[in-house]
Amino acid sequence: MIKVGIAGATGYAGAEIVKLIAGHPAATLTAVTSRSYKGRSMGEIFPAMKNIVEIECEDMDIDNLCKRIDCIFLALPHKISMGYAPLFLENNVKVIDLSADFRFKNASAYEAAYQKHSAEKLLKKSVYGLSEIYRNEIKNTDLLGNPGCYPTSFLLPVLPLVKEKLIKTKNIISDSKSGVSGAGRSLSLATHFCEANESFKPYKVGNHRHQPEMEEILSIHAGKNIKITFVPHLLPLNRGMLSTIYASVCENVTSERIRQIYEQYYGRKKSFVRILPDGFFPDISNVRNSNFCDIGFNLDNDSGRLIIASAIDNLLKGAAGQAVQNMNIMFGLDERSGLINIQGAL
Amino acid sequence: MIKVGIAGATGYAGAEIVKLIAGHPAATLTAVTSRSYKGRSMGEIFPAMKNIVEIECEDMDIDNLCKRIDCIFLALPHKISMGYAPLFLENNVKVIDLSADFRFKNASAYEAAYQKHSAEKLLKKSVYGLSEIYRNEIKNTDLLGNPGCYPTSFLLPVLPLVKEKLIKTKNIISDSKSGVSGAGRSLSLATHFCEANESFKPYKVGNHRHQPEMEEILSIHAGKNIKITFVPHLLPLNRGMLSTIYASVCENVTSERIRQIYEQYYGRKKSFVRILPDGFFPDISNVRNSNFCDIGFNLDNDSGRLIIASAIDNLLKGAAGQAVQNMNIMFGLDERSGLINIQGAL
Amino acid sequence: MIKVGIAGATGYAGAEIVKLIAGHPAATLTAVTSRSYKGRSMGEIFPAMKNIVEIECEDMDIDNLCKRIDCIFLALPHKISMGYAPLFLENNVKVIDLSADFRFKNASAYEAAYQKHSAEKLLKKSVYGLSEIYRNEIKNTDLLGNPGCYPTSFLLPVLPLVKEKLIKTKNIISDSKSGVSGAGRSLSLATHFCEANESFKPYKVGNHRHQPEMEEILSIHAGKNIKITFVPHLLPLNRGMLSTIYASVCENVTSERIRQIYEQYYGRKKSFVRILPDGFFPDISNVRNSNFCDIGFNLDNDSGRLIIASAIDNLLKGAAGQAVQNMNIMFGLDERSGLINIQGAL
Amino acid sequence: MIKVGIAGATGYAGAEIVKLIAGHPAATLTAVTSRSYKGRSMGEIFPAMKNIVEIECEDMDIDNLCKRIDCIFLALPHKISMGYAPLFLENNVKVIDLSADFRFKNASAYEAAYQKHSAEKLLKKSVYGLSEIYRNEIKNTDLLGNPGCYPTSFLLPVLPLVKEKLIKTKNIISDSKSGVSGAGRSLSLATHFCEANESFKPYKVGNHRHQPEMEEILSIHAGKNIKITFVPHLLPLNRGMLSTIYASVCENVTSERIRQIYEQYYGRKKSFVRILPDGFFPDISNVRNSNFCDIGFNLDNDSGRLIIASAIDNLLKGAAGQAVQNMNIMFGLDERSGLINIQGAL
Repeated sequence: MIKVGIAGATGYAGAEIVKLIAGHPAATLTAVTSRSYKGRSMGEIFPAMKNIVEIECEDMDIDNLCKRIDCIFLALPHKISMGYAPLFLENNVKVIDLSADFRFKNASAYEAAYQKHSAEKLLKKSVYGLSEIYRNEIKNTDLLGNPGCYPTSFLLPVLPLVKEKLIKTKNIISDSKSGVSGAGRSLSLATHFCEANESFKPYKVGNHRHQPEMEEILSIHAGKNIKITFVPHLLPLNRGMLSTIYASVCENVTSERIRQIYEQYYGRKKSFVRILPDGFFPDISNVRNSNFCDIGFNLDNDSGRLIIASAIDNLLKGAAGQAVQNMNIMFGLDERSGLINIQGAL
Repeated sequence: MIKVGIAGATGYAGAEIVKLIAGHPAATLTAVTSRSYKGRSMGEIFPAMKNIVEIECEDMDIDNLCKRIDCIFLALPHKISMGYAPLFLENNVKVIDLSADFRFKNASAYEAAYQKHSAEKLLKKSVYGLSEIYRNEIKNTDLLGNPGCYPTSFLLPVLPLVKEKLIKTKNIISDSKSGVSGAGRSLSLATHFCEANESFKPYKVGNHRHQPEMEEILSIHAGKNIKITFVPHLLPLNRGMLSTIYASVCENVTSERIRQIYEQYYGRKKSFVRILPDGFFPDISNVRNSNFCDIGFNLDNDSGRLIIASAIDNLLKGAAGQAVQNMNIMFGLDERSGLINIQGAL
Repeated sequence: MIKVGIAGATGYAGAEIVKLIAGHPAATLTAVTSRSYKGRSMGEIFPAMKNIVEIECEDMDIDNLCKRIDCIFLALPHKISMGYAPLFLENNVKVIDLSADFRFKNASAYEAAYQKHSAEKLLKKSVYGLSEIYRNEIKNTDLLGNPGCYPTSFLLPVLPLVKEKLIKTKNIISDSKSGVSGAGRSLSLATHFCEANESFKPYKVGNHRHQPEMEEILSIHAGKNIKITFVPHLLPLNRGMLSTIYASVCENVTSERIRQIYEQYYGRKKSFVRILPDGFFPDISNVRNSNFCDIGFNLDNDSGRLIIASAIDNLLKGAAGQAVQNMNIMFGLDERSGLINIQGAL
Repeated sequence: MIKVGIAGATGYAGAEIVKLIAGHPAATLTAVTSRSYKGRSMGEIFPAMKNIVEIECEDMDIDNLCKRIDCIFLALPHKISMGYAPLFLENNVKVIDLSADFRFKNASAYEAAYQKHSAEKLLKKSVYGLSEIYRNEIKNTDLLGNPGCYPTSFLLPVLPLVKEKLIKTKNIISDSKSGVSGAGRSLSLATHFCEANESFKPYKVGNHRHQPEMEEILSIHAGKNIKITFVPHLLPLNRGMLSTIYASVCENVTSERIRQIYEQYYGRKKSFVRILPDGFFPDISNVRNSNFCDIGFNLDNDSGRLIIASAIDNLLKGAAGQAVQNMNIMFGLDERSGLINIQGAL
């Protein structure tokens, strides 16, 4: 059994990892940390977990923790993670970081969107945890930067098409919509029930921090600098994210060719990426509470205009689920281990 | 007082017109028709209207109706309207049709999207009821085709920019999201509560009937044939619609120039189209239960990429509200008459 | 025109009054105060009001205000109101207070539930603003304590039955459910979107401050001390409140007799209290955005068990709407003035 | 591995059983039937199940089915089940029926609420599947009538108190609220999104079919005829049910005594019934997607009035989850087998 610790276990993403590890057949939860809830059990903080997960929250004491864990999930705010990660690595504890701190190769891109990086040399070492794309690199790393939710929903459908040169790299648009849990558990007027309910709006148009993350990864695979257009919106629902993506196909690219490439990247039996049949499009409710990413597309041959829609659960494939999938890969387990009982519920 | 009749008063749009006319200072409701609810009062069918609107539903008896009304709102299914409209016109009753039957100039475009047209010659005579754009024509017509909800949310922000040649006519995209009331009051699995709630999805990708309507109007004003990309989505909320629109500006077009044009088209005091300040974007909850259309935009000068978002209440500015606004114009009343007390509520 | 001021205009109840007065045919809004938003216009703070209400928020300067208003609505926190009310009264400005400060006759009952009262002698003078019951007293007062939302939904159906001795005063139960706007606009984890959405729970069981308010009014009319059982619950919707009430009828009381009494109290044409026909029960969506209270009931003759359900919009009949209704009565206007265009929308 | 068949696998309850069995460590799904979807796979009908459950729907062919299964779940309409059950029993297939057909001991009570019973003698043999109460009987039966959702949420908290004579059997009230999935997957205006969303109302006041079911079970344990007051309401959320229950305690009964009895009935480690600490009340969101029943209570010593609230997921503990729990008991498995990974999600 892999001994697992979770830092920041009482945020939405942290709590999801707790639940996943609690039900995981090959991992066991040996430590959870929380500044706000020290000394209280998970079942007390989240009554939903009562009688299932009763582990108690503790302070972040690195030495003490490292004796008891093989792997740490850092579900901490940006900037905080980069301080802790090196300490765990020194103690031979594998690190899966859910913040943005280890997602970038290029420190200046990170610093433009976030702040000064204090562990810059680790960026070379860290692997971007888009599981289906970086599987081989993930196997061999002990430091993983888990992707953002928007980048996951965007890159899974777009990256193979860019890599295989099926679409033009100019004027790619992602019109993305996220459920409110993406904004986390801290209070704000925008996520106050009466303000978000029966409401819908774009936000951070042209300056969301996930945009440089998508652009860096895409640029690496294209071999050239790519700029995209990205507009996030807030949906009045708890969990789920859908990106509608617009691009132009390269000459002579057909719908069949696109399907073939998707099949090549994601077609393995029991894949978490499901390519829908022609004429079908994803629905957030079909991936809710699951680690799946559903992708549908439509190509208008006359105009060469390609429309793709992809849906994930922002807290699972967009955060905690993909993090556990990455843990499975890092420890040589079946990739779906512990992730398949959380079925897309009603 | 204008004597008003409403045909199809028990659908969502029809019932909204009933409520608007019931509160209108210069109009009075003298007849409502309904096939399904003949002989029952509005307050009985919609308990919300009890003690406010107690008029009884009757059959569609043209001769009888025409004696009692100056104006008829047809909130009937496509194809049905075109049969009735000529009969009302012959009796000097002004017709405001909420179906698609009189929105097109080009019968074959209508027929491609809908069915054979039986009153083709009336198409020349009928005026497209996008109030802010066709105000002068509306004043003088007695047959009005009230715009679809998606076209209203798309054309109000886009048409001035096309007309004034501020944006390129190629590759205009409308990523539109509508509340469930847009699908009407008839039952379907897609609008069953448990299927639509906590859900979000694109639908009719590439073949929604509102697309040719938008393209025809845009093409008329551009003086050339325009094709757009349009993807409608279903939002888990009752009423409201938001379109996020992507276009490329023509050379040397600045943000200030765009604002200037919007000001020119919509800047009159008390306009129903509100152009938001720089950095602000519309929210469906700000136009709910109102006849307003809110528009915000962002221009990326480097790429020339323009992002516009526009929000309306699909049942009001997208249907019943704009229909009443058009009645006001047709009868020479203040355009806001009866439309300003339905304020965007919490 | 009545010149109206609103103190605390940027909370949910305050903002509703702003909208109602803005659309009122016999009142005009001459001043709004807000500590947090001083110097900003209502349309700027609430974009929904843009182009409708552009009045600017000012500080609470009593002398200055009193010159410009005939009537002040105090939509302020408990305790704050009791400090201001006397100052307005001294200046011959009528006071409609939406806090609990002037709802009680008995200072000690108020103090047990809230805090020390600083204007105790005004309690004798102030009138409890349950419009349909205290109409005559309201006509002649210049200080009104506007009822709480739960008390309104409970007292309207129960008070006539207690007064006319149709039900036993022991073991009356109110199982009440409120939309989230009842909790106001200040942030809390319980009203965070992801916590309240798809959720439902009782709260403050046995210790909600509205309980002594209901008990005092009921006791006054019964001529004896009455204790009730009251359990409030939080509904995952923006606005609306429904109370399901259980009581035992006195001997020989029939369903017809109950209906007769309701008719006597509320049967006037155009009443805001609508008694539903046998077999019908209220639905929150039928009173949403309206000032109505809908009441339905069922009497089981074998057991003598009476079940009543009553529904209101908590922000309108439960706060701002009833406050404006009371202003209408205090100033001798038609009771429905300015309140009938806010129709129960879809 | 237990070989499991599910009849009526495409309704909401049936589909939940499919998902539970698909993730069950000691059971395997060998057949699913559906009249409407014959020949189509579960993953095709419910895209959420794609890549997880791909079994194909077949016709109800008893002989063929019985060769392949040890146990059948009947998720069929009332009346249909009673025709099939005897046929499975003859073939030594254990039957877990989710309809009302085998919940009653007294055929005439069943017939008063439903219709003529065609397998009346099986009623003696069948066991009422309230798992925590009838555990011993369930172990030894091969015909189980799975409880209704309302009865489960009512009987779990009330039955122990009645049995141990802690509360009076007169005037017990259950004010119950259910999510919309309780109404099933068939279409109706009441469950149309725009009608149910932002809405709340009582329904079937005084004549819901679950009332005689609760009364029969309660009467059996009380040794006398008990009548209750039951009012169901429709909540605007997908899944979850909460009952607020009012009763009077017998003389000298204390809060401690009630807790002691609950401890005795439900206190085993890993119980699915969780008794909350003093001052805490259940929230539907804490039991969502889980098989738990959460119970909180408050006793007012002065009046002897007891308030209890209990929450379940209507599709799990209220239907599919309890059915699988019963299967576990019938086959001698750990009662929580396959039921603990479906954790109450956000």
